[in-house]
Amino acid sequence: MQFGPRIMARVVELAAVTDTPGILCRRYLTPEHAAANDLAATWMRAAGMNTRIDAAGNLIGRYEGETPGLPALMVGSHLDTVRNAGAYDGMLGVLTAIECVDALHRAGRRLPYAIEVVGFGDEEGVRFQATLLGSTAVAGTFDRTLLERVGEDGIAMADAMRGFGLDPNRLGEAARSPDDVIGYVEVHIEQGPVLESTALPVGIVTAIAGASRFNVSVTGLAGHAGTVPMPERRDALTGAAEMILAVEQICAEAGIVGTVGQASVEPGAVNVISGATRFSLDVRAAEDGDRRSALKTIRSTFECIAARRRLSVSLDETHDAAASPCSARLADELADAVARAGIVPHRLPSGAGHDAMAMAALTDTAMLFVRCEGGISHHPDENITVGDADVATRVLLDFLVHHMPRTHNQRAGAT
Amino acid sequence: MQFGPRIMARVVELAAVTDTPGILCRRYLTPEHAAANDLAATWMRAAGMNTRIDAAGNLIGRYEGETPGLPALMVGSHLDTVRNAGAYDGMLGVLTAIECVDALHRAGRRLPYAIEVVGFGDEEGVRFQATLLGSTAVAGTFDRTLLERVGEDGIAMADAMRGFGLDPNRLGEAARSPDDVIGYVEVHIEQGPVLESTALPVGIVTAIAGASRFNVSVTGLAGHAGTVPMPERRDALTGAAEMILAVEQICAEAGIVGTVGQASVEPGAVNVISGATRFSLDVRAAEDGDRRSALKTIRSTFECIAARRRLSVSLDETHDAAASPCSARLADELADAVARAGIVPHRLPSGAGHDAMAMAALTDTAMLFVRCEGGISHHPDENITVGDADVATRVLLDFLVHHMPRTHNQRAGAT
Repeated sequence: MQFGPRIMARVVELAAVTDTPGILCRRYLTPEHAAANDLAATWMRAAGMNTRIDAAGNLIGRYEGETPGLPALMVGSHLDTVRNAGAYDGMLGVLTAIECVDALHRAGRRLPYAIEVVGFGDEEGVRFQATLLGSTAVAGTFDRTLLERVGEDGIAMADAMRGFGLDPNRLGEAARSPDDVIGYVEVHIEQGPVLESTALPVGIVTAIAGASRFNVSVTGLAGHAGTVPMPERRDALTGAAEMILAVEQICAEAGIVGTVGQASVEPGAVNVISGATRFSLDVRAAEDGDRRSALKTIRSTFECIAARRRLSVSLDETHDAAASPCSARLADELADAVARAGIVPHRLPSGAGHDAMAMAALTDTAMLFVRCEGGISHHPDENITVGDADVATRVLLDFLVHHMPRTHNQRAGAT
Repeated sequence: MQFGPRIMARVVELAAVTDTPGILCRRYLTPEHAAANDLAATWMRAAGMNTRIDAAGNLIGRYEGETPGLPALMVGSHLDTVRNAGAYDGMLGVLTAIECVDALHRAGRRLPYAIEVVGFGDEEGVRFQATLLGSTAVAGTFDRTLLERVGEDGIAMADAMRGFGLDPNRLGEAARSPDDVIGYVEVHIEQGPVLESTALPVGIVTAIAGASRFNVSVTGLAGHAGTVPMPERRDALTGAAEMILAVEQICAEAGIVGTVGQASVEPGAVNVISGATRFSLDVRAAEDGDRRSALKTIRSTFECIAARRRLSVSLDETHDAAASPCSARLADELADAVARAGIVPHRLPSGAGHDAMAMAALTDTAMLFVRCEGGISHHPDENITVGDADVATRVLLDFLVHHMPRTHNQRAGAT
């Protein structure tokens, strides 16, 4: 096994860089962020890369192509974590990329394009409650109003940048030109159970799902649990229960996902019929059309249920993000590499957000998912096997070796 | 209209006796309790009754029958309230009874039994979180361990009794002998919408429903809202939703009531599938057999739903009270009085608990429900019409005039 063991060892080394002993938490622009950048930069340089920290705090290691200064394929993921995180989410994408460059470097091999391995400084958004800060800076879509946002520690983002040795006024310099970047490829743990249930070590992402979120309010009439006969009730909770089951059925039939993760019942007494029930709704789909269509059905079904039960219902949209399709050309190339490794190329959407979603504003993107144990993520139990880490790296390296860059003009046209 | 206007005026007078200006709250053994007793005792004496405060703080006004010392029919309800109460719950039963005795007194009429109008000191249980304290004392079923219970104001019940001028060691003297009491009749607002929806001013209670309460826990597996396909989910909340709807359907089909008034979802994040959901269950029926049968169906249905969804479910019983049937003989006599008033005698169960439930341990009981606006109770909007107050009093008086007491030995036998 060529790559797996060292990746697993480095995962452990990186996981030791945390702001809270015993659990993993590494947030943007903190001393731990700087330490993780230093550690990964050491590995990058040992793999033959030149390293730098960009204007947003992202770590970038560059491995030149056949001639210096060629446009670069960016490969990587993020180095920040959620609180009480697993050790693979993000880091695996950086470590597999470093291994690939190291293999090329040791073989003395140069490709017809440069490779830039990137470790984004923020994807999870824990410190400033805003996600994808590193990759939006690189893609040139960073929302500058966020610089004034005060993080959970009372420090504004602009001040945190200065404390990290960055100049917030020069943040724009992190943005890359589409002429210099030919694509972005990210290896990431699946964070779901699909690959495990299909017994495959890796899978090719078709798109990062679009998502809609709503706060739903159902209003009925409170009443005494003992004195109001069932047919006369206007019970907000039983109405909400029927709506929650409708979400489940509509999304299952549409082959997308819909989740109610929060619910609160008012007045909330054991002997009082609910006069109002509120719940959250999260709907995601790889195709925006599928999501819109399901939401239309959900809305009309909610209204039917409310009317039949003499309730009222309102949906307040709190979030709406379009799907981010991966490049079909790059996905096909990844699938070819998977097939050459003797693995059935399985394609699946990503229900979670990733840096590739932000990078799609700049360039073509592709993602390779790696099977994770029990689909568990954002938890210390997050786990993958050393064998799967090795397979993912071999597939990525094979992809890189076979990849033929197109000129910039080609991007707008085909696929 | 003979009785209605004065009852409504006295309701307003009593509602002014509160511990919180602007809202009605009158708790057991407080200065407001004493003031309400004083006010009602004045009205009782004006109606020809001798009054006393019994060993539990209940107000009792006695109107002798054809000869002094006859066994008494007790008629009344309670004088305490919930916090932010309506003005009729309890008080209406005391005031209608006083009007009836006043009418007999003014007509110089004596009945073949004594009447004792009772204003129980505690039914709602606000102060000591234990209900029916006044009526259980009279029925001889008072739980003496409650004397040590400390109320919401930090004062133990025994000390509160002393402060009220009572001796907790003599509490047993409040208990009445079955030989001295021939029955208990209570007029009470319905606290539900049945009479309003059938357009009837009064109704005859068949039984005070028995009740079961449970805490239900549904356990599944938490997961990412974006990454776990619908068929692979073990969502505790959608399972709970199906169970909540099953309760609604099973109870509706059985003609009883079942309510889920509380629910909590864990972990409770918009983007996380619920790993555990807990909810309360309250099931009531006039016939204990109906309740037991429905609970059996509910349990097996919950288990089917859990098994099909790969969830686990547990039910923790927190309350189990048997139904308290009213005396069929007294109910028939009430129905006759209702019919003589030109009103269709409508019989209905009481889903809420009442003093009659405690008094059933001592003697035969009957209840006359009075229509209330919108079924609203335990709320300042609680309301009845002056006309309905009048009808209820006329029916009660007619019942009293026609009532023929049985000897004690008759009770065990017929009906």
